[in-house]
Amino acid sequence: MNRIFNDPDLMVEDAVSGYLKAHDDLVSATTNPRVIKVKSAPKAGKVGVVTGGGSGHEPAFLGYVGEDMVDAVAVGEIFSSPTAQAFFDAFKASNGGAGVACLYGNYAGDNMNVKMAVKMAAKEGIAVKTVVANDDVASAPKDELAKRRGVAGEILMWKVGAARAAEGGSLDEVIAAAQKAIDNTRSIGIGLSPCTIVAVGHPNFQIKDGEMEVGIGHHGEPGVSVMKTKPAAEMADMMLDYVLPDLPFAAGDKVAVLLSGLGATPIMELYILYNRIAEVLGQKKIAIKHNFVGNYFTSLEMMGATLTVMRLDDELDRLLARPARSIGLVK
Amino acid sequence: MNRIFNDPDLMVEDAVSGYLKAHDDLVSATTNPRVIKVKSAPKAGKVGVVTGGGSGHEPAFLGYVGEDMVDAVAVGEIFSSPTAQAFFDAFKASNGGAGVACLYGNYAGDNMNVKMAVKMAAKEGIAVKTVVANDDVASAPKDELAKRRGVAGEILMWKVGAARAAEGGSLDEVIAAAQKAIDNTRSIGIGLSPCTIVAVGHPNFQIKDGEMEVGIGHHGEPGVSVMKTKPAAEMADMMLDYVLPDLPFAAGDKVAVLLSGLGATPIMELYILYNRIAEVLGQKKIAIKHNFVGNYFTSLEMMGATLTVMRLDDELDRLLARPARSIGLVK
Repeated sequence: MNRIFNDPDLMVEDAVSGYLKAHDDLVSATTNPRVIKVKSAPKAGKVGVVTGGGSGHEPAFLGYVGEDMVDAVAVGEIFSSPTAQAFFDAFKASNGGAGVACLYGNYAGDNMNVKMAVKMAAKEGIAVKTVVANDDVASAPKDELAKRRGVAGEILMWKVGAARAAEGGSLDEVIAAAQKAIDNTRSIGIGLSPCTIVAVGHPNFQIKDGEMEVGIGHHGEPGVSVMKTKPAAEMADMMLDYVLPDLPFAAGDKVAVLLSGLGATPIMELYILYNRIAEVLGQKKIAIKHNFVGNYFTSLEMMGATLTVMRLDDELDRLLARPARSIGLVK
Repeated sequence: MNRIFNDPDLMVEDAVSGYLKAHDDLVSATTNPRVIKVKSAPKAGKVGVVTGGGSGHEPAFLGYVGEDMVDAVAVGEIFSSPTAQAFFDAFKASNGGAGVACLYGNYAGDNMNVKMAVKMAAKEGIAVKTVVANDDVASAPKDELAKRRGVAGEILMWKVGAARAAEGGSLDEVIAAAQKAIDNTRSIGIGLSPCTIVAVGHPNFQIKDGEMEVGIGHHGEPGVSVMKTKPAAEMADMMLDYVLPDLPFAAGDKVAVLLSGLGATPIMELYILYNRIAEVLGQKKIAIKHNFVGNYFTSLEMMGATLTVMRLDDELDRLLARPARSIGLVK
């Protein structure tokens, strides 16, 4: 296994340590080694914006901590939820007295730990409200939205929520903006290779040579179908065929498109995929107002990509456009 | 081969097309489909900054076209030099009447084509001067600097040259700054897996499971040694042991550090490597003034990383710090 690590059980510690050394102009450690905050947090009177999730998805989650972005992040083990204590400490690190918006993804561990952390915060008088991202159309049918996982759409939710908080929005306004963001967002992934957690030592699932898995989750959760690999244009068409009817998106819509590699996909191949996505959206009279193409939400060294499309109204457009600075996203 | 492409022979066309669609606020096509320029180029009175190289290294080379960055880029086939015509057309696209600085890497094809393009430009009265990057310490001994390849140090050379041009520097001043940048820069790579050009269909070289190749080039050029994989800290120490004595760097130096993944390396593993690099430089009293950790100069889906260290004086420090906007690098 040709990877870069010291002790396989201390990869998160080492990575967080390196991240803090690299970006000490922007972020800082807290008393909890699994919580990182933007240096300027907490800001008095501003709603704190918190997220958290497992490691191995870099730049998610910690890379979206920044100025006018996420204020504090709870860092989990690789592909595992952060602890309730880490979420709670992230709430405290970001709390400027106006409450905390915890914007996270719909996974069992995260749900449980956030719920506990919200109770811990309530006891200390910190108001925390949550939005749970569920943008992955492949993870459950449309009539079971609450079962759907959160994937790269979370990034757009964070950007929107954080921008609303930076504008001076109240906790309810931040929550409403973030909820609207994710409600108008749909994603799907295609996996072309598995990935390996170093401490486990073997791939967490299999994808055969010449096959791809449509709808795969960020931890190798089964997708909706396994099929022969297709030309990029057909991959793009298929992703759009899952995403567009689900909301549904329609002619005249303005959208943001986020196309993320899963880790090992060459950047030029993401642009090959984007080329077709932009072409088809143009044909359908859906206008791309913001786009993000790159490694925004990865799964270690998985090969493949996720497509995220968000329908914009004036508020979402304005909030996405607002300047922000983080390692994962600069506007 | 589970990759994202349509016609394997048209991958560059498709990727360039997608890149132009994604970033049409910043860059634009030219009459030569293999030349991309920043929208604002040419700027009257400003020295044009040009680079070029093979595709498959994204965000290099085209991703470094931007505001106060590279003005125009010549795009080659995957792992192949752009044509002389493409370099020439890039010179014309960036020429604002103050001459053009062509800052590129030391490869046989690029040398030949740039040389021809410079002659073509001279016939049209466009003054072009060149700097050839040769930062890869593993590619030739120190007494044969002219044989060394250019690798990720090129990015710092482009940043410095482009910033000097943006400041209003003359062609000679831009060339002098870029030459000083690369003269003070040293790099080395470690390869952990090979990569595959889709049109070829099999890996361009082999790295065995459990082995790594120290000093590997961006196209699989042989390194200085193949050995068993080592813990990240030992990889970092080894990279520094090649890079630091070569210039040499010494206590009291201020430096920029660029740690780039080769394509498939999980971002968290780059931070694990950076953690040790920053630690050792600290112990050696070498101060990191700028750092860049991420996928800055890749080789398709190769696993591994390159370390680049640049010694700074006040001018280089100032030029690296100057704001700039490109897909690959934002300051």
